[in-house]
Amino acid sequence: MALVVQKYGGSSVQDADRIKKVAERIVRTRKEGHDVVVVVSAMGDTTDELTDLAEQISPAPPAREMDMLLTAGERISNALVAMAIHALGAEARSFTGSQAGMLTTSKHGDARIVQVNPGRLRSALDEGSIVLVAGFQGMSEDSKDITTLGRGGSDTTAVALAAALEADVCEIYTDVDGIFSADPRIVPDAQHLDTVTYEEMLEMAASGAKVLHLRAVEYARRYNVPLRVRSSYNDKPGTLVAGSIEEIPLENPILTGVAHDRSEAKITVTGVPDTPGMAARIFRTVADAEINIDMVLQNISHESVGTTDITFTLPRADGPRAVAALEGAKNDIGFDEVVYDPEVGKVSLVGAGMRNHPGVTATFCEALSSAGVNIETMNTSEIRISVICRADQLDGAVRALHDAFDLGGDEEAVVYAGTGR
Amino acid sequence: MALVVQKYGGSSVQDADRIKKVAERIVRTRKEGHDVVVVVSAMGDTTDELTDLAEQISPAPPAREMDMLLTAGERISNALVAMAIHALGAEARSFTGSQAGMLTTSKHGDARIVQVNPGRLRSALDEGSIVLVAGFQGMSEDSKDITTLGRGGSDTTAVALAAALEADVCEIYTDVDGIFSADPRIVPDAQHLDTVTYEEMLEMAASGAKVLHLRAVEYARRYNVPLRVRSSYNDKPGTLVAGSIEEIPLENPILTGVAHDRSEAKITVTGVPDTPGMAARIFRTVADAEINIDMVLQNISHESVGTTDITFTLPRADGPRAVAALEGAKNDIGFDEVVYDPEVGKVSLVGAGMRNHPGVTATFCEALSSAGVNIETMNTSEIRISVICRADQLDGAVRALHDAFDLGGDEEAVVYAGTGR
Repeated sequence: MALVVQKYGGSSVQDADRIKKVAERIVRTRKEGHDVVVVVSAMGDTTDELTDLAEQISPAPPAREMDMLLTAGERISNALVAMAIHALGAEARSFTGSQAGMLTTSKHGDARIVQVNPGRLRSALDEGSIVLVAGFQGMSEDSKDITTLGRGGSDTTAVALAAALEADVCEIYTDVDGIFSADPRIVPDAQHLDTVTYEEMLEMAASGAKVLHLRAVEYARRYNVPLRVRSSYNDKPGTLVAGSIEEIPLENPILTGVAHDRSEAKITVTGVPDTPGMAARIFRTVADAEINIDMVLQNISHESVGTTDITFTLPRADGPRAVAALEGAKNDIGFDEVVYDPEVGKVSLVGAGMRNHPGVTATFCEALSSAGVNIETMNTSEIRISVICRADQLDGAVRALHDAFDLGGDEEAVVYAGTGR
Repeated sequence: MALVVQKYGGSSVQDADRIKKVAERIVRTRKEGHDVVVVVSAMGDTTDELTDLAEQISPAPPAREMDMLLTAGERISNALVAMAIHALGAEARSFTGSQAGMLTTSKHGDARIVQVNPGRLRSALDEGSIVLVAGFQGMSEDSKDITTLGRGGSDTTAVALAAALEADVCEIYTDVDGIFSADPRIVPDAQHLDTVTYEEMLEMAASGAKVLHLRAVEYARRYNVPLRVRSSYNDKPGTLVAGSIEEIPLENPILTGVAHDRSEAKITVTGVPDTPGMAARIFRTVADAEINIDMVLQNISHESVGTTDITFTLPRADGPRAVAALEGAKNDIGFDEVVYDPEVGKVSLVGAGMRNHPGVTATFCEALSSAGVNIETMNTSEIRISVICRADQLDGAVRALHDAFDLGGDEEAVVYAGTGR
């Protein structure tokens, strides 16, 4: 008998029929003799609808009240799933994040989990009940106010509960069959991966793969929670995310797959005085606007004039704000101008042992060159090589790399229905 | 500076515009220098919609999960009102029933308030904030589960908070201008009452007047909380419910008004063995089905055969269940049959000092007789005379009594827009 944590996203519970299907799967798992804990997101578009309602009321609603409002969504879906389970003859009880002992920081809208005290859940499981926990929420340790966890919140809730309850597995249900060596919508012969290590999954997620949130994978890796990414539409086993890259003998590079990301933009700050501290001031300006920077490139200095250009990438959604923040600091720092370029894409090869095998990097660059893709920026780690290219060249770049490294499989991959949340 | 508790029902907050209007009134009250605590029901038809959703999932959802589900409604409306207040430049914080220290029994769907610990609300008020509290809900003392309070729950929440915080007044906002000597839709010259005592209001509420729930009035009377019933559409002062009937010198009967009730049915159990304990068994049978009985009449014994008939009234919604329960007990108790009559109405004259003034009862009966209304059952208390008559004679009975006791005023009453919740 195992303890299984399952997470279902908004599209899996978007109406009464889908809720009943999810309940059937949950009860099936319980009947196999396992303890089952389920995390459910809000139904369908509920969170967006509540956000709209708030915007009709106020242009800048207080974050504390947004959290009170939005958490109603998960409360509703979890109670309904519990009812559906009960209608199938099994015991089920739903709990809010706060009732489940999910303690967080106080940052409304983007709280971090500080501690999980699952005592009440444990008692319910011992009484034979299936346990439902509202995802995406918790309670602030300090103020005792309800908080929401920000992006990837529901996946993270599921992993955190799995860690606290020492679950045997945490299953993340989505609408794809698992993790592939590339996006099957771009690469028809992308291969399904049976297993990936935490580090590979981290790099895939950081490089654009949308199936699992980076944050949830990091939490799973820290607490060694086995994750399984599965489809809620069938019974295929999906992909197991577990184990560490260090456990794999690295005689040859092991390539996991090719990830891509269309959500970034590129900023170049030109004519930055080439003196110590200037780069730091540029990054501090962006950081103060609470914007994360991804790849950084400091271009060749223009020695003759004592300046340099600094290029970096960031989420496109934050682009305008970053530009505004930098323009505001122009006189202080003394650079020439801010050049904003949203038409970029990022493509990454993920695997193990990249740096030790220069042949990989060479093959990488040759493949892109042959495909007519110009490398604008490159960035590497132990298990990833990423480049920035023109957005309209991204698909070709993904296919070129996937072929060059022979990642294709014999079976035609199942086309994505879309990604879960 | 006073502490004011205000309660707004579902129609007052049914959409973004109404919510903003309510927020304006709340902020106006705060700007007069008062501490303000507001109880808000769920928006419009939310509770019904959530109940429908539950019915699509399961025919008999567990009560614990219904409470988790339904309480989402008040959470949403309170957060939105807090946002609207904030958009007007004032501070506001919303709290769930549990956060507000509302401890209850464990009976899901119909919990009773056991204790109110308003410490967190008090702190928020001291910090200058307007406080919003979700009505209709609390937390079970024993199980720590979320509970809903059943009928009249939001009014009762407001009164309970007013009592615990020692508020100066508890204002119940509805869509009528206050309490009248009769329903103005039936009696055009019904008078607006400036003040009524708790006991008179209790009788009015028990006799069918829908503006305030009996339960909330009882709570207010026990803790001496002044209630004000006002319209959310204008600034009229409404009706103050306060004081006790004992404080009023009773030289002459003081008549408050005429109430009517269309929601009852009549049951007659015929041929009940006229031996001690039989009536008790009949009432126990009905009580075990968790049905409340209103008026009771034990008809004349049929001495020759040693049996009697027992007649009582009850909520029509419970009629079929009561009949079923009694039919099930027929052989045990040994009566002849159960006769069910849903076509009844109840009309009541409410005031003080009825019993001491037999002239009142006589005038009462004469007025009904002249109006061609047949009295089927009569029941009196110190401050109320009620009769059961045919439902289709009810309006005529109300008008006849109102005229006979000269309760009409000079001004045309404002026609009810409908009653608040």
